[in-house]
Amino acid sequence: MAKKNAFYAQSGGVTAVINASACGLIETARKHKDKIGKVYAGRNGIIGALTEDLIDTSKESASAIAALRHTPSGAFGSCRFKLKSLTENLAQYERLIEVFKAHNIGYFFYNGGGDSADTCLKVSQLADKMGYPIQAIHVPKTVDNDLPITDCCPGFGSVAKYIAVSTREASFDVASMAKTSTKVFVLEVMGRHAGWIAAAGGLASDEKCEIPIVILFPEVAFDKKKFLAKVDSMVKKHGYCSVVVSEGVKGEDGKFLADQGLKDAFGHSQLGGAAPVVANMIKDALGYKFHWAVADYLQRAARHIASKTDVDQAYALGKAAVELAIKGNNAVMPTVDRLSDKPYKWKIGVAQLKNVANVEKMMPRNFISPDGFGITDKCRTYLTPLIKGEDYPPYKDGLPQYVRMKNVAVAKKLKEFKL
Amino acid sequence: MAKKNAFYAQSGGVTAVINASACGLIETARKHKDKIGKVYAGRNGIIGALTEDLIDTSKESASAIAALRHTPSGAFGSCRFKLKSLTENLAQYERLIEVFKAHNIGYFFYNGGGDSADTCLKVSQLADKMGYPIQAIHVPKTVDNDLPITDCCPGFGSVAKYIAVSTREASFDVASMAKTSTKVFVLEVMGRHAGWIAAAGGLASDEKCEIPIVILFPEVAFDKKKFLAKVDSMVKKHGYCSVVVSEGVKGEDGKFLADQGLKDAFGHSQLGGAAPVVANMIKDALGYKFHWAVADYLQRAARHIASKTDVDQAYALGKAAVELAIKGNNAVMPTVDRLSDKPYKWKIGVAQLKNVANVEKMMPRNFISPDGFGITDKCRTYLTPLIKGEDYPPYKDGLPQYVRMKNVAVAKKLKEFKL
Repeated sequence: MAKKNAFYAQSGGVTAVINASACGLIETARKHKDKIGKVYAGRNGIIGALTEDLIDTSKESASAIAALRHTPSGAFGSCRFKLKSLTENLAQYERLIEVFKAHNIGYFFYNGGGDSADTCLKVSQLADKMGYPIQAIHVPKTVDNDLPITDCCPGFGSVAKYIAVSTREASFDVASMAKTSTKVFVLEVMGRHAGWIAAAGGLASDEKCEIPIVILFPEVAFDKKKFLAKVDSMVKKHGYCSVVVSEGVKGEDGKFLADQGLKDAFGHSQLGGAAPVVANMIKDALGYKFHWAVADYLQRAARHIASKTDVDQAYALGKAAVELAIKGNNAVMPTVDRLSDKPYKWKIGVAQLKNVANVEKMMPRNFISPDGFGITDKCRTYLTPLIKGEDYPPYKDGLPQYVRMKNVAVAKKLKEFKL
Repeated sequence: MAKKNAFYAQSGGVTAVINASACGLIETARKHKDKIGKVYAGRNGIIGALTEDLIDTSKESASAIAALRHTPSGAFGSCRFKLKSLTENLAQYERLIEVFKAHNIGYFFYNGGGDSADTCLKVSQLADKMGYPIQAIHVPKTVDNDLPITDCCPGFGSVAKYIAVSTREASFDVASMAKTSTKVFVLEVMGRHAGWIAAAGGLASDEKCEIPIVILFPEVAFDKKKFLAKVDSMVKKHGYCSVVVSEGVKGEDGKFLADQGLKDAFGHSQLGGAAPVVANMIKDALGYKFHWAVADYLQRAARHIASKTDVDQAYALGKAAVELAIKGNNAVMPTVDRLSDKPYKWKIGVAQLKNVANVEKMMPRNFISPDGFGITDKCRTYLTPLIKGEDYPPYKDGLPQYVRMKNVAVAKKLKEFKL
């Protein structure tokens, strides 16, 4: 096969480790210059491909690329832009192929969640249909941990670690204050549909360090009366209590507790604010003084407390994507396959994109305790290795030294394309 | 002087490093067994003294006490309980002296902020008046950094580091998303009256890593129009913007932006929720998509990203308190005296409590930029060394190993006392 360039884009919400995947991908591509020419990154994700706004990553030094491994966020820009279906907007897909042709791109690496897996699959199908050969490989990424087949998704382990550590720390705090002041601390965490992140709050408590924690999962119908009774019993027994509430919890009216009435570009509701709702509910019914926090972007950007397991896997998946491409794979996604829990062992596997796209992995019901407010041992066994290990970034003058790319544009060859 | 026992209590909101002061104090007292008998800690702060609920810290192993250095929160419990004035409630002070007499306590170490400095001073005066000799030493602690004379307060440096790091991380995140999604990120931070913590958000941006940040200080009258214009110009120029808003910012009506109408035991308003107010203001006026976070307890409990400078100073101040006591001092507080900025050098000094109590140190106006939305070089020079250095706690299975004390009670000798 003649040497082709590669296209790489970051999609959707960024994470603490998506750049570690970029690092693995670019470093590996650079080692295979006989097969892969340049790696062009889409500026702001797939939009960069549509508008022919490509970044020439070969202009970045080896040390800058290496520093991506410890830099959170999306170094080339990401976007929330879902390509329409082939029938709805064939022009967008044709444009992609036109840009790929113009820049001799033979590899399409798309780094994202469920929506981007679907896009990636469509690109591979279309390339086939249009007679322009392109290998489309999806690199998994999502803090929501909701992709199927892979044991876990890069980005999730680090958010889980942040939430577990923060819940433990804040619980120590409220325990100190509970005698005369705050008795309930409420932490709102991400997770629109799946309670994976909320579940991580449960890790804050373990055999050696028991903490009264009540978790509100989006998977469990919210029962105000039962919830308040649970919090009350925890406070009466332990003197205090921490509540970890997923942004995706719905009230008895079927609406998100946190609904602000906004929607993002994908049509998803824009959430935030379940914590104050829950906290005030407790205050009104039980009279306990509360504090609440909303972690929002802090949780998914917190590279300073990233999970080493997560960073290693993110890098390995970026690397594997290139290796799969070189071996001639198309319409696939490298996965993390768990070999054993204790000791934790994993290897890279491979999934067909047709089995990934549009499938959402929910928390198994047996990961949630019978009363709906906690995690089971099964869940703990699954989660624990994912937060294991620290992987601190370098610091200077007290601040982490995150890298910024030069992001040099590739000269355009085509006419403008209206999005 | 005959050998006396010591009383130690933690007061007010706890921090990531107040236990480091306890560690310094207890370890140092243990080295001076000829002068100081046992260190009794008040269970839940001063309430423990009033109710004769004393903890015998001699029952804790050397390794448990050493682990306090890396454990956030208040290991013996803290409280929000302000002793009334001598004329209003002499009985409380007399009770303290009664308890001290009963347990042969000759040293009163009080670890807290402005209110506790005042209590500490009163105890020293009363002991004098009542003919029961007691040396009262205040150990400074407050995330608000608002104690006078000392160059900084333990607890502040670590919050400042957390806010600086988190602001940098979240800003990288929003920068990645800004093309099609979130353009403004709003982070609410603590600081009821003084903008020290909000100022730390400004450290996220420096010469090597410029970030558009707008800070809302409680010291600056909030001007909605000017603020919105500032945010708009930042977004137009950089594509995105981060806003760091102090919980203490007041709206044009003179009320806290975040006012929930609640008050704590000291009569202070219970705040929270300035971030959503500001974020919605931006959305309504400018139409920019936003995300917001409220750090709340996470910031002051975040021992995982504590400043090494802060931990070292907290420990040194606890140690110094004992050394001052042994040298016969009374009604004093050890301080951090800054000797030079670059390289940062400091030593322990001493302040008279009468000059500390009821004095609140505000941000100097020349620490805030002329437009009121940023920090000056002077401020940067002051803040930078305080967040310097990392001091990671030990981890096991991905979680920090924080210690819990056994907190064994000392046998009571007196009748019950009604609070």
